[in-house]
Amino acid sequence: MTGLREMTIQLRTDGIQHLYEQIYDYIKEEIRTGKLLAGERLPSTRFLAEYLQVARSTVDYAYGQLLSEGYIEARPCRGYFVCSVEDLVQLDGSGGFFARGKEAGGFRDGSGENFPEGNGEEVWNPGRAREGNGEEGRNPGRAREGNGEEGQNRGNAMEDRGFRVDFSPYDIDMSGFPFSVWKKITKNILSYANSDLFAKGEAQGDWELRRTISRYLHSSRGVDCRPEQIIVGAGNDYLLMLLEKILGRHVHIAMENPTYKRSYRIFRSFAYHITTVEMDEAGMRADRLEQSQVTAAYVMPSHQFPTGTVMPIGRRMELLKWADSRPDRYLIEDDYDSEFRFRGKPIPALQASDGHGKVIYMGTFSKAIAPAIRVSFMVLPEVLLERYRENCSFYSCTVSRIDQSILNEFIRDGYFERHLNKMRKIYRAKHDMLLACLQQLRGGFAVSGENAGLHLLLTARGKVTEEELVARALEKKVRVYGLSESMVEDAAGSATVLVGFGGLTEEKIREGAALLREAWGEFC
Amino acid sequence: MTGLREMTIQLRTDGIQHLYEQIYDYIKEEIRTGKLLAGERLPSTRFLAEYLQVARSTVDYAYGQLLSEGYIEARPCRGYFVCSVEDLVQLDGSGGFFARGKEAGGFRDGSGENFPEGNGEEVWNPGRAREGNGEEGRNPGRAREGNGEEGQNRGNAMEDRGFRVDFSPYDIDMSGFPFSVWKKITKNILSYANSDLFAKGEAQGDWELRRTISRYLHSSRGVDCRPEQIIVGAGNDYLLMLLEKILGRHVHIAMENPTYKRSYRIFRSFAYHITTVEMDEAGMRADRLEQSQVTAAYVMPSHQFPTGTVMPIGRRMELLKWADSRPDRYLIEDDYDSEFRFRGKPIPALQASDGHGKVIYMGTFSKAIAPAIRVSFMVLPEVLLERYRENCSFYSCTVSRIDQSILNEFIRDGYFERHLNKMRKIYRAKHDMLLACLQQLRGGFAVSGENAGLHLLLTARGKVTEEELVARALEKKVRVYGLSESMVEDAAGSATVLVGFGGLTEEKIREGAALLREAWGEFC
Repeated sequence: MTGLREMTIQLRTDGIQHLYEQIYDYIKEEIRTGKLLAGERLPSTRFLAEYLQVARSTVDYAYGQLLSEGYIEARPCRGYFVCSVEDLVQLDGSGGFFARGKEAGGFRDGSGENFPEGNGEEVWNPGRAREGNGEEGRNPGRAREGNGEEGQNRGNAMEDRGFRVDFSPYDIDMSGFPFSVWKKITKNILSYANSDLFAKGEAQGDWELRRTISRYLHSSRGVDCRPEQIIVGAGNDYLLMLLEKILGRHVHIAMENPTYKRSYRIFRSFAYHITTVEMDEAGMRADRLEQSQVTAAYVMPSHQFPTGTVMPIGRRMELLKWADSRPDRYLIEDDYDSEFRFRGKPIPALQASDGHGKVIYMGTFSKAIAPAIRVSFMVLPEVLLERYRENCSFYSCTVSRIDQSILNEFIRDGYFERHLNKMRKIYRAKHDMLLACLQQLRGGFAVSGENAGLHLLLTARGKVTEEELVARALEKKVRVYGLSESMVEDAAGSATVLVGFGGLTEEKIREGAALLREAWGEFC
Repeated sequence: MTGLREMTIQLRTDGIQHLYEQIYDYIKEEIRTGKLLAGERLPSTRFLAEYLQVARSTVDYAYGQLLSEGYIEARPCRGYFVCSVEDLVQLDGSGGFFARGKEAGGFRDGSGENFPEGNGEEVWNPGRAREGNGEEGRNPGRAREGNGEEGQNRGNAMEDRGFRVDFSPYDIDMSGFPFSVWKKITKNILSYANSDLFAKGEAQGDWELRRTISRYLHSSRGVDCRPEQIIVGAGNDYLLMLLEKILGRHVHIAMENPTYKRSYRIFRSFAYHITTVEMDEAGMRADRLEQSQVTAAYVMPSHQFPTGTVMPIGRRMELLKWADSRPDRYLIEDDYDSEFRFRGKPIPALQASDGHGKVIYMGTFSKAIAPAIRVSFMVLPEVLLERYRENCSFYSCTVSRIDQSILNEFIRDGYFERHLNKMRKIYRAKHDMLLACLQQLRGGFAVSGENAGLHLLLTARGKVTEEELVARALEKKVRVYGLSESMVEDAAGSATVLVGFGGLTEEKIREGAALLREAWGEFC
């Protein structure tokens, strides 16, 4: 155990940096520089809190973030231990995230110290949070049938489809969208618009927007890229099509199971060779990649869909090491909803730890702003950028310059940050509401995937199938989504459903949860 | 020769239908129903005009349209003869174009009877108009080097690039764009916008826009399709990518040489097997297709780029017959600039003659409205629509719903028609101006590709290479575009350059033409 005497944290109380953040930074730095070694035990949160004269929740919070990012692990009844972080110190780019975020005045979750004391234990207990995920990850299973409906516009049409409550994990809340700001910017842009704006722009997207995106990525996600590396396109689907042209058709891709089904369908339509790779509680197993002929791995390290797994730093390093060992190996990082993390700081992107140009980073504004804003982007490593320029730069940009200009101003002038902060609060309230409502089901179900994203997972403890859960809910006119819908390969496993809350009002969440209790009462 | 006594045209003078149109309709119907047979000679325009008591230009005009569409042909010093129109009467959909156009109150060139009498001979002399085209078509040639610049935003930046005049065939005139209308519609749409508009729409595009497009296509292009067959996408490049997923990767595609280089690059990036097929004065030779393993042919029947060739009805029927003889054969019709025909009625789309679902029709609003309006569309035959629904309907639409709504209102409320009519006049004036300015070069150059589109072709009669022409122009800081840039296969041939006028003012056209006369004086 690391003795308290060795903890030479000098906490500043001038308010420039949150206390939990200083503790987090200090311990991370000790791990990164090798002063804390793998397997070493950290002081308990109670001891450290007393020693530093801070609230215990402050230390909980710092430990929680270190747990989320995989720097430390919790062993039941034994305490917190430093993880093995392979090759961490050799790779560039890692660790500098928060510092850079600060300099750039980035997008940060302001919830920090306001985190409710009583709730801390539950939120940051990695054992419990990961339990559910791990189970699914290790035993992925059940008959699957993609319904093809994901991402379709449902929202208000819910009642029309005969559901009283549709717990869709794909819906978002548009009520918070700043229509007036969007209109104002649009009007302004059109007022000053000249024929240039209606002319064709650069193939990769307008440089101003790319610069704005690169700054945003830098401050909010730790992504390190030049605007030149960014390609703007009308949606992820299109960008993946473009990526197919860049990577070529002989790609052997690794996917997790379950995964984001839309991406799977797209890769399948490319006739890519697809291999599902075993997951554990840390996400895709890097050792399994070595045993296959895989050339690219599709991952969602900051928040895996649908399990919610956050890939710890150790596993990230393993994946990067795998990719780095051959020139034609790449990691496709789909950072689809990193904006919505409700507790703690955002998890940095995998790209932030990539010093060798092995990560293709993909992001979208569909979830954070609106699905109709058809703007996504992809950050290419330099080698692939070269290939894009040689073979694909004649493909015209698929986003109109007017839309690019509107989005650029929206981000540049701070509206996006404000919108994100607002939506994070709205979604957090819904998340907490749903979690509280599901409390009564805890006897029969394990809850997982909390604290980020727009859905939770419920796994039945007893003998019941996913189909039964979905069917019983349907009898009450409530729609939940079987985990098997996200499965790309059949596998036996437990009964798990996705319960989304993004598109529902708090009232609807309460109503739906009450109906689920009725429907599933016998399983509790 | 068809005797005058057999011409039982009852001309109505109530003004409901133009006189030339009645003559055109009558003769076309006689050919379609087999009353006029291939090889029969028509009365001369002078005789027919006297017999019908109409101006000779009226008959010229009617014959001109029949010539353009390939129903009749002109033999020098002998007169006009009925063409062989293979299988015409058996195929559905042909011939009904203008009638339907009228019912739907369609988009028509209003220039009709106002056509200047003195000019008629020149405009409608197919021998001369086709001479240049045929020559290039038959002897496609010269070293090629795609410069990749086509379609780039040049416009105002011309001077920056060191050119005094850039005769780009890709530039359009944005000065006529109805910014105020566009702004008004945008403002209106945003005023009434609710969150639905910011939600994700249908994968094929919003139904309202597809219905509007189908009506427009029906009235202006004779295209017969249901809104369900239309797929809206952000540009032709994207739609071709989607088409790749529908047709599969084992497509052996036939292209003309020269052709639209951008499409060639895209097909090449698909790793399609590409075969260039010999052209004659009617366009792609259908008999050559039979000798290859080609499964799809890419054509621009209404106005081939860059030669300007209009594919006559006979050749269209041959191509349709070729496609019809095997289930996996298709014709890809790129109807990229059909809106800009300056003399006569618009040439109907090939799809209008297709009764068996063999034509994939592609259109765009980039040329007719603005390049930044990233909206193109594709009309799928029913069989391919099925395949799209099965394999590709999960690809999200790449155009935002807001942009779709704006465009829908712009077309639906008649602004598009007005804009097209206005632009047709503007471009016609530029076209006529350039043609007049080039008159002095006629000694050394043959002009072709007149009366439609946004460029002309100049072919040197003497011993000079394309490179010399381009280089001499460049010495005067004038940019012209070698035909070889549109070549996808090297071939020996004459020295031809493309001279575009779309993006130039009339003043610039005069200046540029004067500089070309200086540059090329010795070749005249």
